[in-house]
Amino acid sequence: MTTAAHTIAVGLERLLGSGKVSTDPALLAGYSRDQAPHPPEASALAVVFAESTADVQAVVRACAAAGIRVVARGAGSGLSGGAHAVTESVILSLERMDRILELRAGDEVAVVEPGVVNADLNAAAAEHGLMYAPDPASFTFATIGGNIATNAGGLRCAKYGVTRDSVLALDVVLADGELVRLGHSTFKGVAGYDLVALLVGSEGTLGIVVGATVRLRHLPVKVCTIAAFFPDLASAAAGVLAVGRARVQPAIMELMDHGSIADADALNGTDLASRCTVLLLIQTDGFGAEAEAAVVREVLAAEGGTLSAPGDPAAELFVQLRRNSRGSGTENELRVGEDVAVPRSRLVDYARELERIGREYGVFMKMVAHAGDGNLHPMFWAEPDDGGRDEAVARLRGALDESVRVALSMGGTITGEHGIGTFKLPWLGWEHSERVRELARGIKDVFDPHGVLNPGKAI
Amino acid sequence: MTTAAHTIAVGLERLLGSGKVSTDPALLAGYSRDQAPHPPEASALAVVFAESTADVQAVVRACAAAGIRVVARGAGSGLSGGAHAVTESVILSLERMDRILELRAGDEVAVVEPGVVNADLNAAAAEHGLMYAPDPASFTFATIGGNIATNAGGLRCAKYGVTRDSVLALDVVLADGELVRLGHSTFKGVAGYDLVALLVGSEGTLGIVVGATVRLRHLPVKVCTIAAFFPDLASAAAGVLAVGRARVQPAIMELMDHGSIADADALNGTDLASRCTVLLLIQTDGFGAEAEAAVVREVLAAEGGTLSAPGDPAAELFVQLRRNSRGSGTENELRVGEDVAVPRSRLVDYARELERIGREYGVFMKMVAHAGDGNLHPMFWAEPDDGGRDEAVARLRGALDESVRVALSMGGTITGEHGIGTFKLPWLGWEHSERVRELARGIKDVFDPHGVLNPGKAI
Repeated sequence: MTTAAHTIAVGLERLLGSGKVSTDPALLAGYSRDQAPHPPEASALAVVFAESTADVQAVVRACAAAGIRVVARGAGSGLSGGAHAVTESVILSLERMDRILELRAGDEVAVVEPGVVNADLNAAAAEHGLMYAPDPASFTFATIGGNIATNAGGLRCAKYGVTRDSVLALDVVLADGELVRLGHSTFKGVAGYDLVALLVGSEGTLGIVVGATVRLRHLPVKVCTIAAFFPDLASAAAGVLAVGRARVQPAIMELMDHGSIADADALNGTDLASRCTVLLLIQTDGFGAEAEAAVVREVLAAEGGTLSAPGDPAAELFVQLRRNSRGSGTENELRVGEDVAVPRSRLVDYARELERIGREYGVFMKMVAHAGDGNLHPMFWAEPDDGGRDEAVARLRGALDESVRVALSMGGTITGEHGIGTFKLPWLGWEHSERVRELARGIKDVFDPHGVLNPGKAI
Repeated sequence: MTTAAHTIAVGLERLLGSGKVSTDPALLAGYSRDQAPHPPEASALAVVFAESTADVQAVVRACAAAGIRVVARGAGSGLSGGAHAVTESVILSLERMDRILELRAGDEVAVVEPGVVNADLNAAAAEHGLMYAPDPASFTFATIGGNIATNAGGLRCAKYGVTRDSVLALDVVLADGELVRLGHSTFKGVAGYDLVALLVGSEGTLGIVVGATVRLRHLPVKVCTIAAFFPDLASAAAGVLAVGRARVQPAIMELMDHGSIADADALNGTDLASRCTVLLLIQTDGFGAEAEAAVVREVLAAEGGTLSAPGDPAAELFVQLRRNSRGSGTENELRVGEDVAVPRSRLVDYARELERIGREYGVFMKMVAHAGDGNLHPMFWAEPDDGGRDEAVARLRGALDESVRVALSMGGTITGEHGIGTFKLPWLGWEHSERVRELARGIKDVFDPHGVLNPGKAI
C-alpha cells in the first residue's frame, strides 16, 4: 500500500467508523473496474462502503480536501469503464445503501437509495400491481443508482422509455459535499432547467446520487410472447417495420442473428439454430396483449416468418435466453460487445454492413438487437493467427472503428444505452462537434470545478 | 421609435432583406407579450420574422454585437411570460419556419422547423397512422418550437409523456450565432450529457431551436371515452386511484369541478351542471381500449360515479369542452390561472385546500385537473369591492401565494407544464434551494455568458 492510500484510508476510517473502508488488495482489484473490455488506468487507493448520505458527504469532502478523486459505483456491472478507478481515486460503493424508503402505490412512485437492485424494486412494486419499467439485461444485479448513472435502457424501452423517463427527482451530493434536491415528486414539473435529466446518464461526473424518486407503472395484466423464425435478416427486419405499420407497440421486440442463436443453443442445450437463421422475439402486454399478438402473428407470417404456437412456453424460454445472451464470457481486448443504434428502418442495412466488416477485418461477429428501437449489440471477437496477439487486437480495433463509423453515417449513435465511460471516449468526437463537447465540459466545471468526481469519463 | 430601435431595425433589414423586420407599433405591442397575466417589462425594439437558420444566426450575431437581447417566440401562446419582451430586446418570431422537413414513417420520426404548429404535425403524421403525442390545450395554434421551449404537457402525458420524452435531437443556434446539433436521431442514445433534455423547457435562455427531430407514436386503433358524473370531489378522486389499482393507464383522465362545468355550460349552451358536482373524463386507447373502458366503468361505478352510456357521443363532446375550458377570457392581474402539480393521491386534499383558500382570501375559484398526473389548473379571480382594485389584486396575490405554498407542502411543484417565464419567478426560490439555482445560473453562463438570450426568464 502506498503512503497516499494509507493516509486516505486511515482518514476515512476515522470519519466513518470501522467496517466501511478497505484497502485489501484482492478486493481493490475487483472494485477498481467494471465489466468494460479494457483495464482501468489505475488501481483505487481504497474502497469505501457508504451506509448513509452523511457517509457520502464525508467521503466527498475528505477526498476533495486531499485532492483525491471519487469514483461512485453501484454493482460494477457497467460495460464502458464508467466505474473504472482513475489515478489517485477512491471507489465509493453505494451497494449498502439499498433501502426502498417509500413505495406509494396511489402515487405510482417509489423513493429508493441508490444501491437498491433493479429486480428488488420490481419485486416490491409487483406486490402493488406495479413495475419499475427500465429493464437492462443486468436487472437482477444492477442497481438503480448505476442505472441512473448510465441512463440504462433495456428490452422494454420502445414502449416504456429509458431510465431518464422514469426518474422524477434526485438527491445528489455535489463535488463539495453539499446535498441538493433536484426535480419534483410529481409526474410533471417544469420549474427551471431539467437538472434531473442532466444528471441521469452523467456517469457520476456531476454529482453522486444518494436518493431517487422514480415513477412506477402498471404491471401489465397480460403478456403474450411470440417467437418468429425467419430465413434471413431482410424478412425479419421487414417484419419489424410491418408491426409498426399495424400500429402495434410491442413491449419488447428482440432480434437474434444466427451466431447468437447458435451460442444460446450451446449455452442452454437448445436447438434453435436448425430452425431458423434469424429469430424475432416479441412481447405484447396489457389489456390489448392478445389482440396485438394476433395482429403481430398475421403481419409476421405475411413477411415469411414461421411462428411459435400461441401460448407455446418455448417462446417465453427464448426471451430468457435472449436476456442472458451476453453469455458468461467476459470481454477483453480480443472480445468486445458494441452498443450502437441506428434509425429503425436501417436495421437490415446496418446488419449487412456488420457482416461485411467481420469479413473485411477477419474478425468474428454475432449480433442481437433491440429491434423496436434500432439499438444493436454486435459482439466482435478476433483470434490471434500467425500475426500474433497484437495483430489480432489491431484487426478487432479496426472492425470496431468501422462499425461505429458506419452507424454514424446512417444517422445513428455510438452508444444506445451502455454509456461512454472511458472505452467509447475516442469515438465521442466522431458524434459530437467540438463546440458541443465544450458545452459539456463547461457544465462539468459548473458542477465540479476541481475535478473531484470521476474525472475523464462520459464527456 | 427610439434611436436604438431604428438602428437595430435598419441593421437587421440590411442583413435579412426586406419583409422580415417590423417596428410597426401595433404589431410590436402584440408581439411584445405572450398570454401571461402580467405585462412585459418593456416593449420590443423590433420584431424579426426569421425564414431560415441563417436568418436566426444573423439576428443573434447582430444583436449580440449590439448588446441587444433576443427573445425567441413561437405562437406567443405561453402563459408565464416566457415570450414577453425584455428591456432592449428584439422579438425573434419563428412562425415562418414552419416546414415539416422529413416524416419517416418506418423510423417513427419527424424532422421539423420550430414554427410548425402542433396540430399540423399531427395531421401529417396521421396520414401514416402516427401521432405526435404531446397535446397542450393550445395544440391547434401553438408551435413545436414553443412546446419545446416550455416542455409543454397536455392531456395525454400520463400515458405518452411530456414534450421532452418525444424530442430526440435539436438543431440549436447558440448565443454567439453558432449552430450546433444536440442529441441523436434514434430512440435511444446516451453519448455524453443529455443536452437535449436540458434545452427542452429552458424557455429560449440557452439557445434558439431551429430544428427538431421528434419521435412519433402509433395513432391508437381505437379510442373509448367515458364521462363519469360524481356527487363530490372525494368520490371522483377515489375513482382516479381505483382506475390505477385496476392497472389501467388511461390516455387522458381529466377532472372538472362544478365551477368549471358551469362555465363550460355557459360557453356551450350545455347543461352538465345540473347532472353532477364533479365530472371525470377518461379516454382509453389502443387495442385494449374497450377492455380497459369496461374495467374503468366498473371501478368508477363502485366509487359512486354515474356513467355515460358506452359510445354516447356526448362523452366525446365533453372532452372538447374540457380542451377549451380556459375559455376566451384573457388573464390579467385580477384573473390568474395556476398550474401546480401534487402527488396524485393528494388531489382531493389539495382541491379542498383550494376551496378553503378561495373562501379565506375572498376570491373566486374554479378548477380543472389532469387527474392522471396530479396537475391542477385552478383559476382564481377577484372582484373589486369597497377596497378598490388594488385591494382586490392583493387578495388575489395572497390566494395565489397560498395555493403555491400548500402545493409545495404536499410534495408538489409550482408549475406542472406552463413554465416559469417571469410570472412564476418569485415562487421559484420556494421550490429550489439557492444552490440549485446557482447551478442553473452557472449553466446559463456556459451557454450565454453575455446574457443575449431571453435574460431574466426561467431560472
